[in-house]
Amino acid sequence: MDNLGLRYEERAQHAKNPAAKQLFELMSYKKTNLTFSDDETDPDRFLELADLMGPEIAVLKTHIDILESFVPDITKRLSELANEHNFMIFEDRKLADIGNTSVLQYTKGIYRIADWANFVNVHVVSGPGIIDGIGKANEEMRDSISRGIIILSQMSTEGNLASGNYTLKATEFAKKYEGSVAGHIGNGGNASELAKLSKLCVPGHILFTPGVNIEKGGDGKGQIYSSPDMAIAAGSDTIIVGRGIYGTRNPVNTAKTYRDAGWTAYTKRIKK
Amino acid sequence: MDNLGLRYEERAQHAKNPAAKQLFELMSYKKTNLTFSDDETDPDRFLELADLMGPEIAVLKTHIDILESFVPDITKRLSELANEHNFMIFEDRKLADIGNTSVLQYTKGIYRIADWANFVNVHVVSGPGIIDGIGKANEEMRDSISRGIIILSQMSTEGNLASGNYTLKATEFAKKYEGSVAGHIGNGGNASELAKLSKLCVPGHILFTPGVNIEKGGDGKGQIYSSPDMAIAAGSDTIIVGRGIYGTRNPVNTAKTYRDAGWTAYTKRIKK
Repeated sequence: MDNLGLRYEERAQHAKNPAAKQLFELMSYKKTNLTFSDDETDPDRFLELADLMGPEIAVLKTHIDILESFVPDITKRLSELANEHNFMIFEDRKLADIGNTSVLQYTKGIYRIADWANFVNVHVVSGPGIIDGIGKANEEMRDSISRGIIILSQMSTEGNLASGNYTLKATEFAKKYEGSVAGHIGNGGNASELAKLSKLCVPGHILFTPGVNIEKGGDGKGQIYSSPDMAIAAGSDTIIVGRGIYGTRNPVNTAKTYRDAGWTAYTKRIKK
Repeated sequence: MDNLGLRYEERAQHAKNPAAKQLFELMSYKKTNLTFSDDETDPDRFLELADLMGPEIAVLKTHIDILESFVPDITKRLSELANEHNFMIFEDRKLADIGNTSVLQYTKGIYRIADWANFVNVHVVSGPGIIDGIGKANEEMRDSISRGIIILSQMSTEGNLASGNYTLKATEFAKKYEGSVAGHIGNGGNASELAKLSKLCVPGHILFTPGVNIEKGGDGKGQIYSSPDMAIAAGSDTIIVGRGIYGTRNPVNTAKTYRDAGWTAYTKRIKK
């Protein structure tokens, strides 16, 4: 089944994971498929940026472990902003340990990621045990937050090893744990690779893509970019943009530009 | 060149990474090749266990991000224990992001891993950029701590994807960045796979192996084990043991048993 022609509302019907369902509905309602990567290391500026970007975005992606200081009030405030502006939170932790340790890193420690993040991503280099572990931990939580796992099925960095058989296995794990998994990270920097991944994804899973930039090229640090239009035509459901927005003079205007580009590309895709 | 017949002192001569050199010398001097995995989540018990195990071990492996609370005094105290008992510290962070983000996670944030850990491990699924980034960050530090990267070239969990071409690429990256890399994680649970990796390692790199247990078998959570003797005969330079020690009635005695088993296996190997 081809996902490209389906509207987000239809995809939501297919979703077996509650966080995936919520995000498809949110994107449809708010008319944005933009994920913003908030890479600020100063806690005040981190929250300021979240507040500023909130109205434009579907998802805010965090690296909570690069903040220069941390108190639980930060994630409490972040959750308030998510409610106020209607966006979901994705902690880009890239969990990559055995199931047992990954569950501890996700639910315990200083950051208590599971308490405030809707999405957390995992590498499956350690095998499917990590999905099983995090999925079970999510099921056991008795609160109203919807949670899902994002599998890093491809990457967009030079010389990365998440391709071919690795990607195939990752999508097999995703199908096996369809209700625990919310979606995939795909290679936004390479449209033909991304199209291959898109064909392997069930319609209820969301395809997130980093490596998207309006100005095509690289950043000189091993990151390769393609345009929002190319990425979405190839199967991206939400484009992840960070430096391409916060590194510009007027981040709000730039975010609006990306939002428009992403949404236009999506409406073009579903009309085909 | 085959590493199996070389003594740790000889391996130290080959080492281009300062932390690898220090560890080969330490193992030779202290006559232990035991790495202890301190998985306690209570900070006091975490330090207590480090103090208790200190005399028996070459390396203490930490998951700093599973501690239930954190203040910089914890890692300060850990460094004091490392000096007192003469062991090195390995933060099992499994960094797995693009170079730029991984460097922030390693040097900044709450934990400031680079300030107190000799070793940090990385997944190379994102490509060699992570080794380049962390290696450069280590070179820029102007203090007396020796630092090196451990590459997860194999894993010991069921259904893991770190094998075949993945392992081959990982060892190629290790050779390319020989001075930044201190060694590899190999599959201690599968001696024939481990032997393949050992043949791909330069003599100056250390092969760490989890998945080692005196009582062979699995833990029911996807972790597979083999004996210290099998792992070391196949090329392991230091065996990593956690639950197999702290989960027993008398952890100090059990640590001594593992230490003896590991050292006997090593002396047998170099005599061949």
